[in-house]
Amino acid sequence: MKQKIAIIGFGTVGQGICEILLKKSNFLKTKYQYEYSIVAVADMVYGNVFNPEGLNIPTMLEQAKARQKFTKDVTTMDNVTLIKECNADVICELTFTDLKTGGPAIEHCRAALESGKSVVTSNKGPAALKYAELKALADKNEVSLKIEGTVVAGTPVINLTEGPLAGCEIHKIRGILNGTTNFILSEMEKGMSYNDALKVAQEKGYAEADPTGDVEGYDARGKVTILANIVMGTKLDISDVSCKGITSITSAHIEEAKKQNARWKLIGCVEKKDDGKILASVAPEMVPLSHPIAGVMGATNALTFSTDLLGDVTIVGPGAGRHETGFAILTDLLNIYKK
Amino acid sequence: MKQKIAIIGFGTVGQGICEILLKKSNFLKTKYQYEYSIVAVADMVYGNVFNPEGLNIPTMLEQAKARQKFTKDVTTMDNVTLIKECNADVICELTFTDLKTGGPAIEHCRAALESGKSVVTSNKGPAALKYAELKALADKNEVSLKIEGTVVAGTPVINLTEGPLAGCEIHKIRGILNGTTNFILSEMEKGMSYNDALKVAQEKGYAEADPTGDVEGYDARGKVTILANIVMGTKLDISDVSCKGITSITSAHIEEAKKQNARWKLIGCVEKKDDGKILASVAPEMVPLSHPIAGVMGATNALTFSTDLLGDVTIVGPGAGRHETGFAILTDLLNIYKK
Repeated sequence: MKQKIAIIGFGTVGQGICEILLKKSNFLKTKYQYEYSIVAVADMVYGNVFNPEGLNIPTMLEQAKARQKFTKDVTTMDNVTLIKECNADVICELTFTDLKTGGPAIEHCRAALESGKSVVTSNKGPAALKYAELKALADKNEVSLKIEGTVVAGTPVINLTEGPLAGCEIHKIRGILNGTTNFILSEMEKGMSYNDALKVAQEKGYAEADPTGDVEGYDARGKVTILANIVMGTKLDISDVSCKGITSITSAHIEEAKKQNARWKLIGCVEKKDDGKILASVAPEMVPLSHPIAGVMGATNALTFSTDLLGDVTIVGPGAGRHETGFAILTDLLNIYKK
Repeated sequence: MKQKIAIIGFGTVGQGICEILLKKSNFLKTKYQYEYSIVAVADMVYGNVFNPEGLNIPTMLEQAKARQKFTKDVTTMDNVTLIKECNADVICELTFTDLKTGGPAIEHCRAALESGKSVVTSNKGPAALKYAELKALADKNEVSLKIEGTVVAGTPVINLTEGPLAGCEIHKIRGILNGTTNFILSEMEKGMSYNDALKVAQEKGYAEADPTGDVEGYDARGKVTILANIVMGTKLDISDVSCKGITSITSAHIEEAKKQNARWKLIGCVEKKDDGKILASVAPEMVPLSHPIAGVMGATNALTFSTDLLGDVTIVGPGAGRHETGFAILTDLLNIYKK
């Protein structure tokens, strides 16, 4: 049976997952007997469309590329109504992240789960602010809530801990959770000042015009909160995570680290102490060059899981991006399909 | 319903998985509703035992520690008969690896799969020599064949590619697949000769009295063969993998690498070329220090998967050992249980 999908938010990630599904449909059918149909798309810019038999995605991708509104299968239903009324099995919530309020994404997730539809999201808002509530709603309605795309999307950390590492108890997660700041620190090591490195990061599209969310550590803090709550089963609020960014790191700091055979990294960490206390933080640290994550340069992410059976296991991979986040969405869609 | 398990081979790994199951039974029951019963054990030294209601494992562990034969629930059934006749759902094949003939392990796996029982194994023999045949037999009988423990057991590579990376096509796998040789090379970098480093590896129990299997690259070659066939779907024979060990690496080589900002590693690699050709090899290589696996020192393993959607994803973790391999067996048992 085909998996029926609705896509809420047809931006970079929404278009990315559609491109991946189109490109890989043969592979997915051959290897996993996976078939899909995209029945609804909702977007602020391009409009809302619905066709229970499936939309014409290639045309819609072309229209979005030309910044034109969708012209076929247009519906007057607003997002929440569309989510509730459409015949999708799975809602992909791919609107923009708002880490203060969660934005409309939380409402989208609630509407989906309440109407018996699974949710796949790359939106850090619902995951960081309302995961426990939404997960309970998913369990109650016997559907899935999958959020691989919310944390270093190109590096499958949540599915890694839920699947291949399922037998382990994890007492610490520590790593490089923000590719932009890691890129800036890597450039500074080549001799650039902080301001020049930031400029390069902006030119390359890693950093936004207002880079606050990355360089002050807020993005990493959202991810630490999600990892703590989902992987380690804590009940952390985002404000429980102490947070310091990289804006105070100077070229002198970089040189000092070199002398000590170390390297500055912005490290996110959550640790369950023996007395049950949870420590969670984001802060720059000098990491000795002998540690596996010290060698991780550029816009790359890395996480080390400290476990009872295996000691440390580290995974290194790309962060978020059109196809990286699309990949995370695809993995979650496949997991739901296999169930 | 309890998972009923038979354990063939009560050596380091067989005892290790029993210790883990005993120690983690509460965690496994709470988190995954997983319960088990070990109904049969077969061992050359301690004898064969069977009790359809479950064996007394703590007593058996004590007896094995004292090098005493089992005294309760003793059966006259030989291994193959026991595998066929016992009431287990899953057979754990944990006897010693023989990479030339596959040893009795292949017969054990066949007997299990033919009688409708799933197989979990850490034995590289069946996996490297007869995987395709055994997998077909498992599929035919609608049971599972799981082999996470055969390749760098403490680092979940097969389950990583089958689960979290399922959406990716993998065209290259490359890494440090043998902890013993990586330990020796790491010691040599501290200034030791090859022979002295080998002696330390033997004292620490990483290398065997006859270190040939590790230092000549044969162990890594078996793992490359398994990865090629299972992860990349090739039909490689172990003899298709070119193989060179580390015995010719001298202190002069180590110094030369340092000068080039690089480090010697024994690298196992399998690559699917654009024309469909498969290249598979084991050989020492100078890896630039900027690569994530260059920083992997001591008896640790690391693998980089080159994928279509994510580029490179690297995982670093421990190799084989009592609890590491036990962990791999547990992961496979849990996966079968979840099905």
